[in-house]
Amino acid sequence: MQGTMKAIAKTAAAPGAEMIRVPIPPVPRHHILIKVSATAICGTDIHIYNWDPWAQGRIKVPRIFGHEFCGEVVELGEDVTCVQLGDFVSAETHVTCGRCYYCRSGLGHICQEVEILGVDREGCFAEYVVLPEQNAWKMERSVPVEIAALQDPLGNAVHTALAQELTGNTVEVIGCGPIGLCAVAIARKAGALRIYAADVNEFRLDLARKLGADVVINARKERIDEVILQETQGFGVDVMLEMSGDAEAIRQGFTALRKGGEAALLGIPSRPMELDVADALVFKGATVRGINGRRMFQTWYKAMDLLAAGLDISPIITSRFPLDEFEQAFDLARSGKAGKTILYP
Amino acid sequence: MQGTMKAIAKTAAAPGAEMIRVPIPPVPRHHILIKVSATAICGTDIHIYNWDPWAQGRIKVPRIFGHEFCGEVVELGEDVTCVQLGDFVSAETHVTCGRCYYCRSGLGHICQEVEILGVDREGCFAEYVVLPEQNAWKMERSVPVEIAALQDPLGNAVHTALAQELTGNTVEVIGCGPIGLCAVAIARKAGALRIYAADVNEFRLDLARKLGADVVINARKERIDEVILQETQGFGVDVMLEMSGDAEAIRQGFTALRKGGEAALLGIPSRPMELDVADALVFKGATVRGINGRRMFQTWYKAMDLLAAGLDISPIITSRFPLDEFEQAFDLARSGKAGKTILYP
Amino acid sequence: MQGTMKAIAKTAAAPGAEMIRVPIPPVPRHHILIKVSATAICGTDIHIYNWDPWAQGRIKVPRIFGHEFCGEVVELGEDVTCVQLGDFVSAETHVTCGRCYYCRSGLGHICQEVEILGVDREGCFAEYVVLPEQNAWKMERSVPVEIAALQDPLGNAVHTALAQELTGNTVEVIGCGPIGLCAVAIARKAGALRIYAADVNEFRLDLARKLGADVVINARKERIDEVILQETQGFGVDVMLEMSGDAEAIRQGFTALRKGGEAALLGIPSRPMELDVADALVFKGATVRGINGRRMFQTWYKAMDLLAAGLDISPIITSRFPLDEFEQAFDLARSGKAGKTILYP
Amino acid sequence: MQGTMKAIAKTAAAPGAEMIRVPIPPVPRHHILIKVSATAICGTDIHIYNWDPWAQGRIKVPRIFGHEFCGEVVELGEDVTCVQLGDFVSAETHVTCGRCYYCRSGLGHICQEVEILGVDREGCFAEYVVLPEQNAWKMERSVPVEIAALQDPLGNAVHTALAQELTGNTVEVIGCGPIGLCAVAIARKAGALRIYAADVNEFRLDLARKLGADVVINARKERIDEVILQETQGFGVDVMLEMSGDAEAIRQGFTALRKGGEAALLGIPSRPMELDVADALVFKGATVRGINGRRMFQTWYKAMDLLAAGLDISPIITSRFPLDEFEQAFDLARSGKAGKTILYP
Repeated sequence: MQGTMKAIAKTAAAPGAEMIRVPIPPVPRHHILIKVSATAICGTDIHIYNWDPWAQGRIKVPRIFGHEFCGEVVELGEDVTCVQLGDFVSAETHVTCGRCYYCRSGLGHICQEVEILGVDREGCFAEYVVLPEQNAWKMERSVPVEIAALQDPLGNAVHTALAQELTGNTVEVIGCGPIGLCAVAIARKAGALRIYAADVNEFRLDLARKLGADVVINARKERIDEVILQETQGFGVDVMLEMSGDAEAIRQGFTALRKGGEAALLGIPSRPMELDVADALVFKGATVRGINGRRMFQTWYKAMDLLAAGLDISPIITSRFPLDEFEQAFDLARSGKAGKTILYP
Repeated sequence: MQGTMKAIAKTAAAPGAEMIRVPIPPVPRHHILIKVSATAICGTDIHIYNWDPWAQGRIKVPRIFGHEFCGEVVELGEDVTCVQLGDFVSAETHVTCGRCYYCRSGLGHICQEVEILGVDREGCFAEYVVLPEQNAWKMERSVPVEIAALQDPLGNAVHTALAQELTGNTVEVIGCGPIGLCAVAIARKAGALRIYAADVNEFRLDLARKLGADVVINARKERIDEVILQETQGFGVDVMLEMSGDAEAIRQGFTALRKGGEAALLGIPSRPMELDVADALVFKGATVRGINGRRMFQTWYKAMDLLAAGLDISPIITSRFPLDEFEQAFDLARSGKAGKTILYP
Repeated sequence: MQGTMKAIAKTAAAPGAEMIRVPIPPVPRHHILIKVSATAICGTDIHIYNWDPWAQGRIKVPRIFGHEFCGEVVELGEDVTCVQLGDFVSAETHVTCGRCYYCRSGLGHICQEVEILGVDREGCFAEYVVLPEQNAWKMERSVPVEIAALQDPLGNAVHTALAQELTGNTVEVIGCGPIGLCAVAIARKAGALRIYAADVNEFRLDLARKLGADVVINARKERIDEVILQETQGFGVDVMLEMSGDAEAIRQGFTALRKGGEAALLGIPSRPMELDVADALVFKGATVRGINGRRMFQTWYKAMDLLAAGLDISPIITSRFPLDEFEQAFDLARSGKAGKTILYP
Repeated sequence: MQGTMKAIAKTAAAPGAEMIRVPIPPVPRHHILIKVSATAICGTDIHIYNWDPWAQGRIKVPRIFGHEFCGEVVELGEDVTCVQLGDFVSAETHVTCGRCYYCRSGLGHICQEVEILGVDREGCFAEYVVLPEQNAWKMERSVPVEIAALQDPLGNAVHTALAQELTGNTVEVIGCGPIGLCAVAIARKAGALRIYAADVNEFRLDLARKLGADVVINARKERIDEVILQETQGFGVDVMLEMSGDAEAIRQGFTALRKGGEAALLGIPSRPMELDVADALVFKGATVRGINGRRMFQTWYKAMDLLAAGLDISPIITSRFPLDEFEQAFDLARSGKAGKTILYP
C-alpha cells in the first residue's frame, strides 16, 4: 500500500516515545497488512516506555512497539492462503521459526528462535502493521474491537488458568493487572468454589471484585497467606495463579497453597528471588507450571469459546484514548489507576 | 438399638416388594447405625423391583434394598473413630475390602471384592441402616435432606463429567435420568460452551432444559448425531457423557463426537452391542473412559465443593412419598414421569 | 529433474499392479524431490494390490502407490527453507492442510483435509517421489536405509505404545504384523514387566519372541484371554495394544485387560463389531484410546530417540527385493511368511 | 512377646547414639510385631545421629530411630486381618491418620497428621519393631533381605523418577546418594536415552556409572549445566530428578533443563535458596513436581514390579555391619565412602 502512516516509536535509547510518520511497510510473501482498529497497552510496553534495564538490553531503536491489537486485513502478500482481504483479525504476537524441535512438536509458544511483535519486530502502535499470515487470528465482526484487541493477554490468562482444574476448586490469583483480572473472570466462569484475588492497588482490587473475586486482599495491608489460611482453616487453596512477578507475593502465595496443590506462574520476577523450596514445593508435593505465552492455537480456540460461552472481560477496559494522546495514556497506565488502556489509531 | 423397624424388602424371587417389620440390626465393630431421613429410588432399585434378568442373577432374597439416602448417626459400634453420634451423613454405597490391589492403590471404586449396599447387603429403604464408618460421608445440616440423599447419583455424575475438561467445551449428555440431569447441571456450572441433552422422554428433556441444556433432542423423533452435526457444521462435540446405556444412542453419540474428542461411559448396555470401532474410535483418535461408581472420596469432596459453589440440582427432585407409599412411588418412577423420587421413612 | 522413472502403479481398477515408466514429476513450491533408496510394503499396499472393497472405494487409478520409504533429496522447489540438497530423509505420509482446527492445535495427525501419500497422491514405489518439505524427516546417514524406510510404521507403534505407561507394567500386544512387532520391542525397551504377544501366524510369533515377548499366544490354538488370565491369576494385564483389527481378538483382549487398565487401538476392524461395552469398558473403568497415524512430529522425535537409545527393530525385516520383482515381494508379503518386505528401486 | 531386645536409641539431646536394652513392645489392636532381619541407614538417621538443627527441632529423646528395614511377622495384635504370622514384610514408614482430606483422597503420602517411623514413633534399629498392619508390605521370600530393607528409599526413587516420562528421554540425576542411584537404575530400566548423574563424591559417581549413568559429573570439578549444555548442543535435558537438596546444584540443574522440560524435586534444601524463577521456570515453560514419600501403595506395587522386571539395585549396597557395630557403620556412612549401609540385628 502506498503512503505513510502514524506510529509510536522508541526513537532513542531513553525513556519516553515519539509519534513518527513512516512509509506504510511492504508486505512480504506469506505476510499480510492490517489496518489497526484498536490497540492496547501491555506491561511490556510500559517497560519499553520507561526504558528499564530489561528494555535497554532487549530493544534496538528505532522500534515501533505495541503488540496487542485487532484490525482489518487490507493487503495480502504473495502466497497467502489462509487469510482474506477484509478479514477482521487479532494476532498471536510470537512469530515462530516453524523449524525447531518445539515448533515441530506443537510447542511453538516456546520456539527457540521466536521473535515478538513490537519487541523484536515492528509493532502495532501504528495505523498499519505487517504480520505473517499464520499469526493472524480471524474473529467475528460481532466481537467489539476493544475485546478483540485483548486476545493476547486474555490468551495468557486462559493458558495459565486452565492449566489446572478450576471447577469446584479454591483459587488464589496473585496480581490483578489485566491478565490477573482475566484469570479471575475465567475461574468464575469455570465454576471455581472461591476466588481470592490479591494486589497492592485498590483500584484493581475493585475490578477483581467486579470480575468475580469472592475475597480481595490488599497485600500492602494484609498478608496474602494469613488471610487465605485463616479463611480456609489452615488448609490452603487448591490452585495458585501467579500474575504479579513479585517475590514476596509469590512466597506468600506458595504458603497459602495446600498440600498437593497446583500453581501456574506467569508473572516474571525481575531478578533471582529467595524461595523456601523445601516448604513451598517438596514437603507439600506441589506441582508448579511455568507458563509462557499462549498455545498456538489451542489457547486461541479456547479463548474464543469462553467468550462465546459468556465470559465477560469488558470491565477490565477502563480507559480509551486516540493514538495521538499516547502520552496521557501511558501516564494513566503507569499510575495504576487503570485496568486496560485502549488506543485508537 | 432395641426394637423393630419398617423396611421395604424383596421377600420373594418375583416382581414387586413388600413392607416388612424387622429388628433394628446390631452394629458391628467399625460400623454405625443411621436413622434414615430421606432415601431415593435409583434405576437399580427399579431393576430389583421389576425382577429383571440382572436382578434375578444378582439379588438373594430376602433383601432390604435401596442405597441412596441420608440420615443421622444414632449408634456407634466399637472402635468407631471418625464418626460421632448425631452426625448428619450420606453414604458411599460401595463397601470395599481395603486389601486388594485397587483398594491399596486409591482405586477402591473398582475394588475386586466390593459389596454394594441394598444389593449385596441390607439397604436403606428402612427406618435404620447399618454402615461401615468409613462409608459415611458427613454433611452440613444446612444441606436439605433431599439433596443429601442424592450424593450417590450426584457422585456418579461428577465422576463421569469431570473426567473430561468441560470449561469452554461443547458437551453432549446422552440420557437424562437423574444422573444425566446432574451432568447437565455440572457442565453448565463448569462453563461449558454448549450442552446438548438427549433422551426419549419429554418430561426429562424439560428438566434438562431447566438444569441448563442449550439444546434438547428427543431421540424418538430426531437422530442425536444429525442434530448435533448440523448444529456444529459437521464438526461434532468435544465431550460425550453417556448415561443411557442404549446401544443406538451410544452409536449416535460417537458419531456426533469430534475427532480427538473424549467420551465417558457410565450407562450400562444390557447386552453386547454393535459398534463401528474403526469410525467411532480409531480413525477419530477418540479417548473413551469407562466410569464406575465414584472415587473414594475425591468425588465426594468435589461434589460437596460444587454444591457449595452454587450447583443446584434441586429441580431433579420431582416427587416425594412417605416410605409406606412405596408402591405408588415405584409406579411413578417407572412411568418416566419423574425426575428423582424421594421416600421418607 | 529431466527424464523418466520406473514406478509401480495401480493402472486398472482390478487386482494386481504394473511396473510403468513415467516422467520424473515436477517439484512445486515448498516441495522437494527425493530419490528413493528403499521402500517397504505396508498392509495398506496389500489392500490396494488386492483391490479389496476399501481400495475400490478410496483409490483413483492410475495411482503410484507405496508410502514407507527413505531416500536422498535431489531437487528443491522454490522457497524450500528447511531441507537441503543431499539430505537423507524419511517421510511423514499424512499431508495436512495446515489450516483446520486440528492442524492449528498441534493435532495434524487427525487433520480434516488430510491426504495420504500413495493413497490420495502419488506414492513412493518409484525411483523418485515428490513431497512437501514439511513432511520430510531428516535422518542420520548412519541409520541403515531399511530402518530409515520403516519410520512410518515404527511411528505408529511409538504413538500407540507410549500413549500408556509401559515401565513395570504387563502388556498384551494383539497382532504381530510389523507394527505389533515394533510395539513389542518398544515395550521391552521401556521396561515392561511382562509382554504377551498374540497372532495367528507362527512365523510372526517367532519374530515377536525375538523382539522381546515373554509369552506368545497363537490365537488359532488358544484363547488370548484364557492364557493371560491364567498367567495373571485372573488379574489381567495393565495395558492392551491392539494392532490386529480382528473383532474376536479385540474382544478377548478386553477380557484380558485388568480393571482400570488402559487400551490403545490402532488396528482397524473392517466392519462394525459386537462388543460387551458394559464388561469391557464400563464396569472395568477402562480407558481406551483410538490411535491414528503419528503425532507430527513429537512421535518422530521419540522414534529417533528410541533408536538412538538402542531400540533394535531390524529382526522385523525378513525379505528384500529389487523394485522390479515387486510381484514376488507382494506374493511373499501376502503369504504371511514375512515380517517386513523391503523393495530397492 | 515377653522379654527384652537390643535397640539403638537417641538417649540424649546430643550427637551420637547408644545401644540400649528395652522390653519388647506390646502390640496394639491392628498392629503387628516384626522381628527385624535387616535395616539400613538413611540420610535422616545421619541427621539424627549428628543431632543437627532439624533433628534438634523434631526428635524427642529417648527415641529408637531407623525406618528402613524388613523382617518377619512374629506377633499379631487384635483384629489384624491383612497380615499373617510368618509373613516376610517391608514397611511404609509414613503412619497416616486415615481421616484427613488427603488420606480420604488417595494421597496418604501427604497426610496432615502423618507420623514417621523412627522419627515420631519408635523405629527399627532394634531386634523388634511394632507397626500398624496397614503399613506392612508383604514381599516374596526370594527377595534378598538387603533389597527388601531398601523398599522405602527405592520407593522414593520410583515415585520421583516415574512422575515424568523417561522412555527415550534424556535425564539428569542430581545427587547420587542411594535414592539418586536407584533413580539412575530406574531411568536405565525405563529406556532413557541418556542419563547424566551428578555428585561431589567420586565413590558415588562410580556407583552411578555401574547403575547405568552414561555421563557422570563431579560437581566439585565441573559445572553440571555446562557439561550437559555442551553435551546437548545447548538444548538441555528432558527430565531433571533432584535428589541432592543442594541449592547450587538445583540452580545448575534447572539451567540444564530444556524448555518445556519436567523436574521432580525430592532433595530438601536445608534453608530458603535463591532461584531465578523467571529463567528456571517461567520463560522455560517448565513443570516442577515436589515429591514427598511414596504413593500408598501404588509406588510399592510399581517398585515390586520393577524388581520383578529385572531392576537391579544391589550395587548400591556397599557395606554391612552387625547392629552392635553401629558406630563404625555410622562413621562409614558419614564418610561418603558408602552407598547403602546395612545393619543386621
